[in-house]
Amino acid sequence: MPQYNPPLRDMQFVMHELLNVVDELKLLPAHADIDVDTINAVLEEGGKFASQVIAPLNLSGDAEGCQLDKSTHEVTPPKGFKEAYKQYVEGGWPALSCDPEFGGQGLPLMINQGLYEMMNSANQAWTMYPGLSHGAYEALHAHGTPEQKATYLPKLTSGEWTGTMCLTEPHCGTDLGMLRSKAEPQADGTYKITGSKIFISAGEHDMVENIVHLVLARLPDAPAGSKGISLFVVPKFKVNADGSLGERNPVFCTGLEHKMGIHANSTCQITLEGAVGTLVGQPNKGLAAMFVMMNAARLGVGNQSLGLTEVAYQNAVAYAKDRIQMRALSGPKSPDLPADPIIVHPDVRKMLLTARAYAEGGRALATYVALQLDKALASDDEDERKECEAEVALLTPIIKAFITDNGWIATSHCMQVFGGHGFIHESGMEQFVRDARINMIYEGTNTIQSLDLLGRKVLANNGATLKKFGKKIAAFVEEEGVVEAMQEFVNPLADIGDKVTKLTTEIGMKAFQNPDEVGAAAVDYLRVVGHLTFAYFFARMAKIALEKQGSGDKFYTAKLATARFYFAKLLPETAGLIRSCRAGLTPLMEMDEALF
Amino acid sequence: MPQYNPPLRDMQFVMHELLNVVDELKLLPAHADIDVDTINAVLEEGGKFASQVIAPLNLSGDAEGCQLDKSTHEVTPPKGFKEAYKQYVEGGWPALSCDPEFGGQGLPLMINQGLYEMMNSANQAWTMYPGLSHGAYEALHAHGTPEQKATYLPKLTSGEWTGTMCLTEPHCGTDLGMLRSKAEPQADGTYKITGSKIFISAGEHDMVENIVHLVLARLPDAPAGSKGISLFVVPKFKVNADGSLGERNPVFCTGLEHKMGIHANSTCQITLEGAVGTLVGQPNKGLAAMFVMMNAARLGVGNQSLGLTEVAYQNAVAYAKDRIQMRALSGPKSPDLPADPIIVHPDVRKMLLTARAYAEGGRALATYVALQLDKALASDDEDERKECEAEVALLTPIIKAFITDNGWIATSHCMQVFGGHGFIHESGMEQFVRDARINMIYEGTNTIQSLDLLGRKVLANNGATLKKFGKKIAAFVEEEGVVEAMQEFVNPLADIGDKVTKLTTEIGMKAFQNPDEVGAAAVDYLRVVGHLTFAYFFARMAKIALEKQGSGDKFYTAKLATARFYFAKLLPETAGLIRSCRAGLTPLMEMDEALF
Repeated sequence: MPQYNPPLRDMQFVMHELLNVVDELKLLPAHADIDVDTINAVLEEGGKFASQVIAPLNLSGDAEGCQLDKSTHEVTPPKGFKEAYKQYVEGGWPALSCDPEFGGQGLPLMINQGLYEMMNSANQAWTMYPGLSHGAYEALHAHGTPEQKATYLPKLTSGEWTGTMCLTEPHCGTDLGMLRSKAEPQADGTYKITGSKIFISAGEHDMVENIVHLVLARLPDAPAGSKGISLFVVPKFKVNADGSLGERNPVFCTGLEHKMGIHANSTCQITLEGAVGTLVGQPNKGLAAMFVMMNAARLGVGNQSLGLTEVAYQNAVAYAKDRIQMRALSGPKSPDLPADPIIVHPDVRKMLLTARAYAEGGRALATYVALQLDKALASDDEDERKECEAEVALLTPIIKAFITDNGWIATSHCMQVFGGHGFIHESGMEQFVRDARINMIYEGTNTIQSLDLLGRKVLANNGATLKKFGKKIAAFVEEEGVVEAMQEFVNPLADIGDKVTKLTTEIGMKAFQNPDEVGAAAVDYLRVVGHLTFAYFFARMAKIALEKQGSGDKFYTAKLATARFYFAKLLPETAGLIRSCRAGLTPLMEMDEALF
Repeated sequence: MPQYNPPLRDMQFVMHELLNVVDELKLLPAHADIDVDTINAVLEEGGKFASQVIAPLNLSGDAEGCQLDKSTHEVTPPKGFKEAYKQYVEGGWPALSCDPEFGGQGLPLMINQGLYEMMNSANQAWTMYPGLSHGAYEALHAHGTPEQKATYLPKLTSGEWTGTMCLTEPHCGTDLGMLRSKAEPQADGTYKITGSKIFISAGEHDMVENIVHLVLARLPDAPAGSKGISLFVVPKFKVNADGSLGERNPVFCTGLEHKMGIHANSTCQITLEGAVGTLVGQPNKGLAAMFVMMNAARLGVGNQSLGLTEVAYQNAVAYAKDRIQMRALSGPKSPDLPADPIIVHPDVRKMLLTARAYAEGGRALATYVALQLDKALASDDEDERKECEAEVALLTPIIKAFITDNGWIATSHCMQVFGGHGFIHESGMEQFVRDARINMIYEGTNTIQSLDLLGRKVLANNGATLKKFGKKIAAFVEEEGVVEAMQEFVNPLADIGDKVTKLTTEIGMKAFQNPDEVGAAAVDYLRVVGHLTFAYFFARMAKIALEKQGSGDKFYTAKLATARFYFAKLLPETAGLIRSCRAGLTPLMEMDEALF
């Protein structure tokens, strides 16, 4: 069975040495009291919960899956899931970064990001049960009426209830403008909602007494398309005025999806048969309200693959040190053994270091963005809030798509380190690969993310936000460009920065001629910009490691080696990506549809 | 449920227009009577078997898996498998390219390659039952005694019996020198074999009356390591002198592996408890004898991913034409529908064309190699036999590793085209991905293939074989370099050819200093050389398509568009690979093992 050790040292390095998060957070009135010890203590305890409580349920949960009783519409998750969730609630974890007004602890989102990375490493399928709640919490917190907030937020904060996002229907996922679920206004101001939803994560289970569905549906007089969609909150059990649970609402799980991975999460087909709900936000403005959840969810999905990358790496390293097979080409390294541990083989190391670099780069980027999000939410300076918000918007599709694509590569490499044993369920490695695969699809496919980045976040404002982020990189290059030991990092960083600038301009020009050029370039482009962000953070981390490597703490030696590996072996991928990107639209559109 | 249409037109193009196989095969005495109609008729019938008989069993076979009765050690494959196998035998398919001396039809291996591509598309797990037999057939044909041949070859040829390869043990797969199974010589010249084997494909099933295990084991006086391994043939039921079946041999399936994919193949743990076998080939020369099977198996594994790439492509195309979602960025293409079919989106086309190009490039390369193999086996000119054999040896690791890595990329892309529906079992797309994954591992991991290519096939003979293959490319470049319309293909082909030459020399020099440089470079290097071979065949195919596109047959228009896509969007990957390769060993070895 796979093992998991929370990477606390690297998290602390990123938070306290790379990003100095306490200095930044203390400037925010809501977090004025934060300190290093609190952050570390929370993460340490969170790591215990992840590694000791939910990690042992990951492999068994995958094998067992969820069971639906079709007569009662009740779903039973795998053994141990309910008990683990109880511990999670008792530990107060759901409330970590929720609003104190509703019972939350009010800690920075950045800490929650760290907690979730660890829980995703331990058990992605389990973590989706509380994970979806957080999205529902945020949508209601941002758009709910005072009554809705009072009814739902304390329960979501405590974790006594969980939430879902009911968006997708069989005929539409990406294109929610086509959705058909209907909401009929009732005399009492509520709505009766009817429709069929699919792919609803954590859609039904017995771990809590109530489930809060956030449902997209169409009002009778709604305009066609995406401008006619409204958001409703539809509880599994109606809630009486005194907060007690009333009768069962006809929102039923009518089927469980048979999936490639995340078997232990109940991915439901949900049928609403005139279920009673209330409107969240304005009529016909449901997509905007839903995007509050969606943006958080996209960061959360990147975090899922970050977690899987880390845990796959840890287990592949353990196996590579233990498994003996063949001799090093340069001669025996363990002559006393019948063969050398496979970690002596350069390509095994290449696979391991790829996963390691993707985990460390992803952690730096995701933690940075979580910090910017805390500032976007809690700064008392409106300009700063807006600037941070724009940067988070820019980097969100990169976190979603780049980290999940990397996670697919990394988990597959780590499985490959196990050879044939990696293909066997008991190793746990193939599960990481299967679980990682969904992260490239849900909450907007990675193609959609790339269009969001290039079309909406970059070209739509003439690259203004990207330029601002680029200025931070340029300042670092300027500052460190004179340091001899930093040349090996700063030069390629400056180079990829220049190339991104040129490429952006070039695509922008082409897109004037034909908007489809955006679609042709976007996926390659996102990956190039993703590498730019990783190159930036690896260069910054290398700077610290260079300064501190004399301390005798081997952590810095390893960090430096990982950064060098990243620049030598992973960043070069951009050379091919840029060429492919520049080849443009014609090679994609030349073939007539009928000839495919 | 996925659909499958045998790609007969493209197979015929590759065989008759690209490679002129009939002209080449007719020169071989064994195939002097071959003609186009025979080849096409066999492939057409084979395609019917694949698409009508075994394709419908693929999805259900995956869901059902195999069942082991632990009391009898008998394994039952999924429903319909046995009946399909009966049809396969009745159709005479196992005998297709077997030796007429033992009841075979004596047709070229190249036709068998085409048949197997289609069967792999239809049902990889099913196809492994007869597929493994072919390896056993070849090992016995090459190394068996006259008695062994008389006993086993007619039954393997007819398909009445199937074969296995029993190599791997729990502690060794790649490093067979460590294996522990023992063979005790008996007074009657037989051996009693004892040991534990794992990962034995088609190791036990009820589809045939006898199973012929080819088993690696160690004689009592055998030297340590790989020079002390012998090959034995161990039948499930002993065979009496008159050919009738005798008593059950104690070679038992003691467990079925729980795998990520190929669920319908019975991947067995096999325990030999003094099972009686006879020696194949010389004592202690078992690995050499086994390599006859292994080389064929490696080509077969590449062919598995070729099949999966093709079928995944076909289904993704059908979905992309049918599924409507969003509008083209350049404006509605189907204004009468609520949204456009997703094939209008450039990135959807990019994913589809990637799979298409990998299928067509793989088919050209694999068919070419199968033809060279026919010449290596059947030419009456010893020099030609040797030259073809060397070229097949060079290209075998490329077929195994490049096509299976491409298959992983392609099936994953095709699954992505389906969005969330691709993650669901019923679509069949996620099965293609899971099945494709094992092909990168078994019969020598892709890392092992890359070491075989760079170390053994290229550097060990100072690049002589690669240079000979390179001369064919250079001759084509020379010939076509003057044709205006061919510039777009010939120039990048010449460029990547030059780069491979330089890269090979550079790695060779480094390897003199440190043999581990080979291990550091090999995987990137194989992928670069793989692209060189694809670029060569796509340029040759483009030449034909250019010549014939005026014929009005749109096949040539599509071929040209696919070739252009390949050069514009896939070949550029080599730019990054070469940089990573040239970065060499240091970034991989810098980090101390303890710091991982």
